[in-house]
Amino acid sequence: MKNFNVVLFDEFETLDVFGPVEVIGTVEEKYPIEYFSQTGGIATSVHNVQCLTKPFNEMPESFVLFIPGGGTSYLTQDEAYLKELRTLAEKADYVLTVCTGSGLLAKTGLLDGVKATTNKMLYEWSTAFGPNVLWQPKARWVKDGKFYTSSGVSAGIDMSLDFIKDFHGHEEAKRVADYIEYTWNEDSSEDPFAVLYGLD
Amino acid sequence: MKNFNVVLFDEFETLDVFGPVEVIGTVEEKYPIEYFSQTGGIATSVHNVQCLTKPFNEMPESFVLFIPGGGTSYLTQDEAYLKELRTLAEKADYVLTVCTGSGLLAKTGLLDGVKATTNKMLYEWSTAFGPNVLWQPKARWVKDGKFYTSSGVSAGIDMSLDFIKDFHGHEEAKRVADYIEYTWNEDSSEDPFAVLYGLD
Repeated sequence: MKNFNVVLFDEFETLDVFGPVEVIGTVEEKYPIEYFSQTGGIATSVHNVQCLTKPFNEMPESFVLFIPGGGTSYLTQDEAYLKELRTLAEKADYVLTVCTGSGLLAKTGLLDGVKATTNKMLYEWSTAFGPNVLWQPKARWVKDGKFYTSSGVSAGIDMSLDFIKDFHGHEEAKRVADYIEYTWNEDSSEDPFAVLYGLD
Repeated sequence: MKNFNVVLFDEFETLDVFGPVEVIGTVEEKYPIEYFSQTGGIATSVHNVQCLTKPFNEMPESFVLFIPGGGTSYLTQDEAYLKELRTLAEKADYVLTVCTGSGLLAKTGLLDGVKATTNKMLYEWSTAFGPNVLWQPKARWVKDGKFYTSSGVSAGIDMSLDFIKDFHGHEEAKRVADYIEYTWNEDSSEDPFAVLYGLD
């Protein structure tokens, strides 16, 4: 089974999660999508979305482990959490992160020596969690081995479409983009927000 | 208080809801955002997102009532539901709909004589719920009086940015779009998906 396991936590950024979920969930070949937090129960987004989650210890094997951003500060200081997250990411076939979720994953050390990107407005803040990561300032998203990392919020939609392209072909990715009436930004090197925030 | 009250139901389309929620929730002047379903409890999206909701009878006055699309067929046949939804929409200062949510609102009769739009792939199906609506086939979104209605899924993001522009100015709408690293489609008459699905 190609399980798409979504990590949620209090203060997750709403669209970081649900853009990619919409994309993955619209693929013809269905991915089982489930939502997890460290201890299960309700995880509440920064916009008061209260989502029911299962605990980490009930997570089936991840084809994809998905990590969003948002108010991640408190998690980057929680050694036990970081250790659990690292283990889940190590075991996953692929790991997708959006926005400051890249900084959170970087703090586990698992992105050391890996090319990655993150939110552009909070670039300095987010990249500081991974001094040994090969951060790419101008990229809407970056692929390196099993890691797909994206810029802020909506960039996760483009990254997820690229992931679909890699596993199901360009035609299926385009069909998904058309279904959700989204004008796909197909070129990861086109990053107007890196320019806007002075990172180019 | 500018309450932004989101209507959820089983089989709601995930991104229909959480694109607009991200936009509205990023405005500097905070809108209280809450989630409601007819009887309260968990509402589950087509992508297995399980959201906690309050019942309709606990909804405070709506500055905005927000209605997404998705698997709405069963609701369009539920007279009691349609009556409740109509009452909530009548009392709201503004009503925003996305995708087949426009068809659902149309079935209440409240869009009769109103200009509106809906999902482009399912245009025939969705518009049939409102034979007296002034449906606009080529428009990414449409404003008429207190009603803002959008095309499928991602179009709700552009419509919500336009709503922010109307109430908080262009500069704030652009700031929100930049914050979520989204390339805003500002022109509602630009509708590539009407062309794609042969509606132009």
